[in-house]
Amino acid sequence: MSVKKVFLPEREIPRQWYNIQADMPTPLQPALHPQTQKPVGPDDLLPIFPLNLIEQEVSTARWIDIPEEVLEKLLIWRPTPLQRASALEKYLQTPAKIYFKNEGVSPAGSHKPNTAIPQVYYNKVAGTKRLTTETGAGQWGCALGLGCTLFGLECKVYMVRVSYEQKPYRRLMMKTWGAECIPSPSRETEFGRKMLAKDPQTSGSLGMAIGEAVEEAVTSDDTKYSLGSVLNHVMLHQTIVGLEAQKQLKMVGEYPDVLIGCVGGGSNFAGLSFPFIRDKIHGRELQVVAVESTACPTLTRGPFAYDFGDTAAKTPLLPMFTLGHNFLPRSIHAGGLRYHGMSPLISQLTLDRLIESRAYNQLQAYAAGVLFAQTEGLVCAPETNHAIAAVIEEAKKAKEEGKEKTILFNLSGHGLLDLPGYDAYLNGKLEEYILSEEEIRESLKDLESFPRPMI
Amino acid sequence: MSVKKVFLPEREIPRQWYNIQADMPTPLQPALHPQTQKPVGPDDLLPIFPLNLIEQEVSTARWIDIPEEVLEKLLIWRPTPLQRASALEKYLQTPAKIYFKNEGVSPAGSHKPNTAIPQVYYNKVAGTKRLTTETGAGQWGCALGLGCTLFGLECKVYMVRVSYEQKPYRRLMMKTWGAECIPSPSRETEFGRKMLAKDPQTSGSLGMAIGEAVEEAVTSDDTKYSLGSVLNHVMLHQTIVGLEAQKQLKMVGEYPDVLIGCVGGGSNFAGLSFPFIRDKIHGRELQVVAVESTACPTLTRGPFAYDFGDTAAKTPLLPMFTLGHNFLPRSIHAGGLRYHGMSPLISQLTLDRLIESRAYNQLQAYAAGVLFAQTEGLVCAPETNHAIAAVIEEAKKAKEEGKEKTILFNLSGHGLLDLPGYDAYLNGKLEEYILSEEEIRESLKDLESFPRPMI
Repeated sequence: MSVKKVFLPEREIPRQWYNIQADMPTPLQPALHPQTQKPVGPDDLLPIFPLNLIEQEVSTARWIDIPEEVLEKLLIWRPTPLQRASALEKYLQTPAKIYFKNEGVSPAGSHKPNTAIPQVYYNKVAGTKRLTTETGAGQWGCALGLGCTLFGLECKVYMVRVSYEQKPYRRLMMKTWGAECIPSPSRETEFGRKMLAKDPQTSGSLGMAIGEAVEEAVTSDDTKYSLGSVLNHVMLHQTIVGLEAQKQLKMVGEYPDVLIGCVGGGSNFAGLSFPFIRDKIHGRELQVVAVESTACPTLTRGPFAYDFGDTAAKTPLLPMFTLGHNFLPRSIHAGGLRYHGMSPLISQLTLDRLIESRAYNQLQAYAAGVLFAQTEGLVCAPETNHAIAAVIEEAKKAKEEGKEKTILFNLSGHGLLDLPGYDAYLNGKLEEYILSEEEIRESLKDLESFPRPMI
Repeated sequence: MSVKKVFLPEREIPRQWYNIQADMPTPLQPALHPQTQKPVGPDDLLPIFPLNLIEQEVSTARWIDIPEEVLEKLLIWRPTPLQRASALEKYLQTPAKIYFKNEGVSPAGSHKPNTAIPQVYYNKVAGTKRLTTETGAGQWGCALGLGCTLFGLECKVYMVRVSYEQKPYRRLMMKTWGAECIPSPSRETEFGRKMLAKDPQTSGSLGMAIGEAVEEAVTSDDTKYSLGSVLNHVMLHQTIVGLEAQKQLKMVGEYPDVLIGCVGGGSNFAGLSFPFIRDKIHGRELQVVAVESTACPTLTRGPFAYDFGDTAAKTPLLPMFTLGHNFLPRSIHAGGLRYHGMSPLISQLTLDRLIESRAYNQLQAYAAGVLFAQTEGLVCAPETNHAIAAVIEEAKKAKEEGKEKTILFNLSGHGLLDLPGYDAYLNGKLEEYILSEEEIRESLKDLESFPRPMI
């Protein structure tokens, strides 16, 4: 019987994260203070993040030790299995070998706890008693709730009101872990009260929820804020995914020709790909594909520009591919792909042609997800389905070309709490959707007054 | 760092199931035909099950080969990890070591696919094109849907109407796998139409759903019926759980002093415990604890008697601990523990004092589940929480006695689709409930006319 799954024994778990800032051909351009337009310093970020995480954010050390206390918690589900989609290969009659890293086995069901756990740990070390964050569909709120219960910190999650009401399961997961999850906008912050005064019936937005979470962190002494994607230290923490995958592939004598992951803010993609991109920088031939939604085509249709990381325009200006911080992507089931910007690290690597990008619409994504579920048995998150659509395209291409390629993708999360999306797809209720050039142009107008990064 | 998790490499996966019928001190008493009261033969069962599964049901061979085609599908998620609940140990300040087998990592989220996959395979080999079954909360329906999509059989699941309406996620999972799931009673069977004529507003019951599923199997040529618990071949298929656990414990130099699992029909408990009970039969000292719900205390308060396996009174009479086939347990969130009877194998082993039993109410179970979630991070199925309540009791006892015991339990499933139950518990909406002696006496009256098994 051929190999279906590779377990990495836990004594083999990587002991260091890989920091791609040490190897990038073009260094990252600095984040800018929105008022002074000068590079931000640690002091600008201290009201929000603890110093140890700010240091990680700007570090250029190649390897950063994973603390024992963090490893101990990651070992609850890590190393995650490397699996082979042999039934899908057979169905497609492709000569390609398809491997995937299964991040859906975490207690929260996605890759997000890989960074939630170290973030909570570093906050605890720095004396933080309480963390706030925002969440849309709930994946990140759950991950942070998990991290906080494991280290004994308090956790408060502002969840976009419409999701809070329509998607109860993830908020119940947070509650089970002892986190407080409240609908945003709320009466608990000044910003929330302002939003409610404007429109008492508002369904909320991620921008508003960030505004509330940051306000609470800034105005309390023992409270900090925690972010689940985009930033450098988040990408760093996720590299354990790719580092494990490298060891596992070595165990079966493989190395990928094509690497695929979906991108919203970029963290699961960075986690899988950065350790391999290091090899590519050093001459290894490798195709690296970031897959986004056509409803939010940041890398494929946005410019590389300075822009706010959040809709509330409170963060520093980040150099990244963006559709503009006021861009409101159409509601799609893959909530994790609805971020207007892109991790600056992924953006720079895309500029340097180390990463290519591609977009699929949700009909293509669900068709791929259903085929995967019916052949491999695993029901994936709608975000992951975008990656699978690209995997299937590559596998078909390999068949046409008669090439025995090895494809590796990141199964970033399971879809057991996203089944209503599958239902809508199977009932023919989902639509394809392509943004018009005008919509994009309109949304980018906000950026005109900002400084321009080098390209 | 001490061991947190033991992976069994997939080349080490057990290649045979263990059949405890070969080693039981007292052989199983035969199932009886309800009319003739004579032992049933294969011919009586052929309209429902294929011959190869009937042969497994009555086999006394000690080891039965797992077909390669079945192994290939089990390898999607097996071997499952053996994990250590070190954070729970620390919280309890117990000298006991607590290990568990994590069956929640299967694509359907529970141990049920361990038997769904071989059952579908054997049916396929026997020429069956289509399988029917019933499901309550949906765990078994999902598992069979998974098995059918992996082997290309059609699948039709009759789901109790009230669950169909109140618990949409699992039926959407079945649909994603291509299974047909319809609310029962339905207009598609004579029995269903009869039930609807009696009460068009009926919310359905497991008994009605079984009646419909069996009728459809009996009246079609290429359709058979599939059962997810109670029967010997189901227990057999589940033994892969305990066989893996034995190998994994050996890898870390451990052997359990106490073995714990929750019981409804008995399959997850049998799966973990039977290979260890073999050692016990051969002289090994070992405490084996079956944990049930006080709402359905079959082993702890029922008699050992001949009774129907189903509420519709269509199956052969089985020798087992039972509360009577018309016993309707109060609605609790642990739907999998609401079975009126008990696997005949587990019943006989209980009579022979190889298994002891214990019952917890749902408040105790959820309290244990929440503590487990907040220390170990994993949210377990409400059924599993009953086992965890017993684990915690044993760990506390070990502390009082100052004994360094090793406890092993079966984490039979995750609770991500059962979060409303946690919510009800955390909001103080659940009640403790103890059956009265009168209720049990009343429900056992039906059995008086049946033959009595030997005790």
